[in-house]
Amino acid sequence: MEKITVSLGDRSYPITIAAGLFDVPASFWPLKSGDRVMLVTNETLAPLYLDKVRLILEQAGIRVDSRILPDGEQHKSLEVMNQVFTALLEGAHGRDTTLVALGGGVVGDLTGFAAASYQRGVRFIQLPTTLLSQVDSSVGGKTGVNHPLGKNMIGAFYQPASVIIDLNCLNSLPARELASGLAEVIKYGIILDGDFFDWLENNLDALLALDGAAMAWCIRRCCELKAEVVAADEREGGQRALLNLGHTFGHAIEAHMGYGNWLHGEAVAAGMVMAARTAERLGQFTSGQTARIINLLERAGLPTSGPSAMRAEEYLPHMLRDKKVLAGELRLVLPLSIGAAEVRGGVAHDIVLAAIEECIANPIA
Amino acid sequence: MEKITVSLGDRSYPITIAAGLFDVPASFWPLKSGDRVMLVTNETLAPLYLDKVRLILEQAGIRVDSRILPDGEQHKSLEVMNQVFTALLEGAHGRDTTLVALGGGVVGDLTGFAAASYQRGVRFIQLPTTLLSQVDSSVGGKTGVNHPLGKNMIGAFYQPASVIIDLNCLNSLPARELASGLAEVIKYGIILDGDFFDWLENNLDALLALDGAAMAWCIRRCCELKAEVVAADEREGGQRALLNLGHTFGHAIEAHMGYGNWLHGEAVAAGMVMAARTAERLGQFTSGQTARIINLLERAGLPTSGPSAMRAEEYLPHMLRDKKVLAGELRLVLPLSIGAAEVRGGVAHDIVLAAIEECIANPIA
Repeated sequence: MEKITVSLGDRSYPITIAAGLFDVPASFWPLKSGDRVMLVTNETLAPLYLDKVRLILEQAGIRVDSRILPDGEQHKSLEVMNQVFTALLEGAHGRDTTLVALGGGVVGDLTGFAAASYQRGVRFIQLPTTLLSQVDSSVGGKTGVNHPLGKNMIGAFYQPASVIIDLNCLNSLPARELASGLAEVIKYGIILDGDFFDWLENNLDALLALDGAAMAWCIRRCCELKAEVVAADEREGGQRALLNLGHTFGHAIEAHMGYGNWLHGEAVAAGMVMAARTAERLGQFTSGQTARIINLLERAGLPTSGPSAMRAEEYLPHMLRDKKVLAGELRLVLPLSIGAAEVRGGVAHDIVLAAIEECIANPIA
Repeated sequence: MEKITVSLGDRSYPITIAAGLFDVPASFWPLKSGDRVMLVTNETLAPLYLDKVRLILEQAGIRVDSRILPDGEQHKSLEVMNQVFTALLEGAHGRDTTLVALGGGVVGDLTGFAAASYQRGVRFIQLPTTLLSQVDSSVGGKTGVNHPLGKNMIGAFYQPASVIIDLNCLNSLPARELASGLAEVIKYGIILDGDFFDWLENNLDALLALDGAAMAWCIRRCCELKAEVVAADEREGGQRALLNLGHTFGHAIEAHMGYGNWLHGEAVAAGMVMAARTAERLGQFTSGQTARIINLLERAGLPTSGPSAMRAEEYLPHMLRDKKVLAGELRLVLPLSIGAAEVRGGVAHDIVLAAIEECIANPIA
């Protein structure tokens, strides 16, 4: 079992990582006998885990209500969040209730914002079930929902009381979603920790085989790295932007192709190669380093080039809508080496375009 | 001009009180040339103040968009708040925008929660236009919206950057709403400051005549008193509950009579007399003190007894739904003297019933 503490003063909380945690009542600290819980999950995960988690909690003397949401990013909305409030009020849940999110990023983000807002804030526990949510949304306190005019536009910074990662959840995760999570894992190596990147090169096969010890250590290291960044920059002023390596390019792919056609991690994987190619052209990264990134992404089953149906010029309008844009100027996260990155403004658009072009597989003539 | 600072560490902010503040660009600190603003108001106030405030801000080089909400407590909802988000996104407002609430409690609460949630938090400025919102919601950071199953059930604690009170707004305030605000003013005297209660006895006529100096000092003192309580208890653990004197009884009246039929301050006025009568029966308050309260409320044009159509037994079910109820036990704010109060649990229901009965005018046989 791996356990770390995310240090945020009186809002510090533990992340516990092991196979089988959902089978043990003690995992669910700080819940205790007599507490009330609203367990929020989605219709895909409910048949797999809901009864199991409910039973363990009830055996520990906890009163459990639940709400099953429709599955999918398009349901991460104020309207669906309101269904959670309705369930809470119909069940007469008070300020001493706890919202428990059982699921991936959509369930976690929506339930976290509901916890931040119900009666102006109740306790929140996360049970992330996808690799992406385990390494990404477990740390950072970003919660929220989408608006028809923009993703994640409505939300709160709100920290959980505890994050409980049962590695057994990964056994039911589709291979494409596992790979999507690995894209974010590899990102941590590139931007923050060259030794971890080396470790990933040596242990990727074990991770793909869901080896428990390797996976626990991998998730722990990602959470540690993110926790360090977040502790230094909780509300996203500076260093935290590094976590967006590949995301400005990736969001352009996701938006252009229609959300859901490219998974987030797939788009980020291609975007990280584009960032590496841009850094090469600026003389701050070598083609040998880019080759290591491409090799590791390919081994993980991830794309390393953009969709053939999307031309380089089609990236820029999306990229200029990025939250990092300041006064109309594109700002990019670019690698400096394997293990270090920077936010750089004022990169000429033709350099960015040429880098993207280099990363389009079999472009349409 | 009166000016105080609400001390909350790095979330401290000023409250400025004077007649004519909306005519002076400098009032709108910390807004500055080049800033963007989303001005939120309602359809009743828009014809009175929207163009005036917009013009002054635009003269100061601030880019102003606006959104006019329907008027009334029933529109303090997630759906109407979402209209504000739509306006923000359609106008491409970024994290550096400022939401300005121009209105009473409904506009302030909803706009404050929108500011807390838009892109996980943008700057918020309050321009409260009713006496009730000037003395009550200017301080405390409580923002939120209603749910069909409960008032103020969804929200956030979120502090404004500045509160700007232009006393000229009171000139257009209906007399009944002025009186409703005075109920909360008198409440501060009873629970926290006997000298202020004396001052009110001596200056109520000036307040009713909207004398500028008297009104400015009165609002300042209420904000100071509330700020002291809130600074000691920002997230409502203990002392802050004293601010609910009369509210447990009052909410019962509002809920039973249908929201909007009795104004909030009217219900609180009757409720404060019921609390005083309860305290008398417990031997901790004198009938002479109650008489002073009744006299002052009557001079302000406020009711001092409950509606004749509501029997004493009809109060209890509503009162037992109060947020202060712990483990099914009624907890009441009760005066100890003019200037001091306590939260008291375990008061026998028959004492409460008898006190309510004493405060029903011409009960139906």
